[in-house]
Amino acid sequence: MSATDPNPGACVIVIGNEILSGRTRDENLPWLAEQLAGLGVPLVEARVIPDEHDIIVEAVNTCRARHAHVFTTGGIGPTHDDITTAAVAAAFGVAVVRDAGARARLQAYYGQGELSAARLKMADMPLGAELIDNPVSGAPGYRIGNVYVLAGVPAIMRVMFDSIRSRLHGGPPIISRTVAAFARESAIAPDLAAIQARFPQVAIGSYPFVRDGRFGTSIVLRGTDPQRLDAGAAEVRAMFRQLGAELAAVQ
Amino acid sequence: MSATDPNPGACVIVIGNEILSGRTRDENLPWLAEQLAGLGVPLVEARVIPDEHDIIVEAVNTCRARHAHVFTTGGIGPTHDDITTAAVAAAFGVAVVRDAGARARLQAYYGQGELSAARLKMADMPLGAELIDNPVSGAPGYRIGNVYVLAGVPAIMRVMFDSIRSRLHGGPPIISRTVAAFARESAIAPDLAAIQARFPQVAIGSYPFVRDGRFGTSIVLRGTDPQRLDAGAAEVRAMFRQLGAELAAVQ
Repeated sequence: MSATDPNPGACVIVIGNEILSGRTRDENLPWLAEQLAGLGVPLVEARVIPDEHDIIVEAVNTCRARHAHVFTTGGIGPTHDDITTAAVAAAFGVAVVRDAGARARLQAYYGQGELSAARLKMADMPLGAELIDNPVSGAPGYRIGNVYVLAGVPAIMRVMFDSIRSRLHGGPPIISRTVAAFARESAIAPDLAAIQARFPQVAIGSYPFVRDGRFGTSIVLRGTDPQRLDAGAAEVRAMFRQLGAELAAVQ
Repeated sequence: MSATDPNPGACVIVIGNEILSGRTRDENLPWLAEQLAGLGVPLVEARVIPDEHDIIVEAVNTCRARHAHVFTTGGIGPTHDDITTAAVAAAFGVAVVRDAGARARLQAYYGQGELSAARLKMADMPLGAELIDNPVSGAPGYRIGNVYVLAGVPAIMRVMFDSIRSRLHGGPPIISRTVAAFARESAIAPDLAAIQARFPQVAIGSYPFVRDGRFGTSIVLRGTDPQRLDAGAAEVRAMFRQLGAELAAVQ
């Protein structure tokens, strides 16, 4: 990524035993990756960690020091296994306090008399947190420092991200071109390395695939300058032609 | 996980710009998570990192010190962006050498006279590495110390993992029971916490969902003792019944 992006990068921390156990397939990471690329904020690291206090604290502190933006998903609900807020507060060395604004939102969402202790838990935030809207289910996410604490349920995570989108100031959007052909990686490696050397501002990745029993390779060119990407993609196509390789549909 | 598993844990490091850019959806992590759970080797951390030397070195060294088993995926092909082997060797402080066994396998796979420099690159391994079979496309993976270096292409990664499966000695398989109902998490939080307190050997997770516009919650009980899991699941079902919540299909 460094070849293409002078922009400050982002890190996503997926918090949840259900992902690590294989029970639930994470949908948030690929979605956030695409959105962040579109905002010109490259995702440069992601972690998946269990719902364990010390591990969350360590991951939040390591990642917020290392990256311009950190997004966590999961663990901010009302049940006993929702421990993200306590851990994030510990990471920042601040208390967990009941946020009046969050309480008012929960009150409005659930109605008078329905604010049980479990629901009120979702108004508890690290001191100094700034709320993030949740029109789907009331309970807000929040930002503290450069850490955005989002829900784990994809539909809720997405509306939360949409509400903070305008605050994320990245560079020009990172765009890509892909050229695929039925040629093995090992047949194109030297020529491809030469193209990469001629296009230092473009990050060129090579991804082998097997389709209907045939080996092929997708070449992905990423960067911020569409003209350089088009020029690089043209060289890749010419390389495949010269090798007599049949172009393949991009998937 | 700590409540259920005294077993040594595992970490997966997904190496690849294509995952972080959102272009490619990682399929290896959920598959490995399930396989490892079945072997009684809980996955306790995963990272997704770019194809950058220093970042790979740091991740490999941090994770191999912290976890019993580390699995990397990606970056071991023949092209310029395949830098995993150089980074893993640097992490272990050993040289990259051309492995005679790996060379023989590539020779057998590609045939006489077809061993280009690019293909031979796939016979380069950290000194002291032990080969992992790749019946799909010849080029082997390898193990060095507690780090298993696997391919990124899912079909190849899987056969590599299958060939090392018998070497991974975990505890009893980690199994689960799931009970789902149309009840909001906040309605069950206190009762569920009480059940968790009565079943300290079972890790109970609560996962909200929205289905056809209705809010529901899946309760997942995980551990190694099927009888305790069944007893805990029975209590969860009784809790939902008492609340008048309609049970939902488990997804």
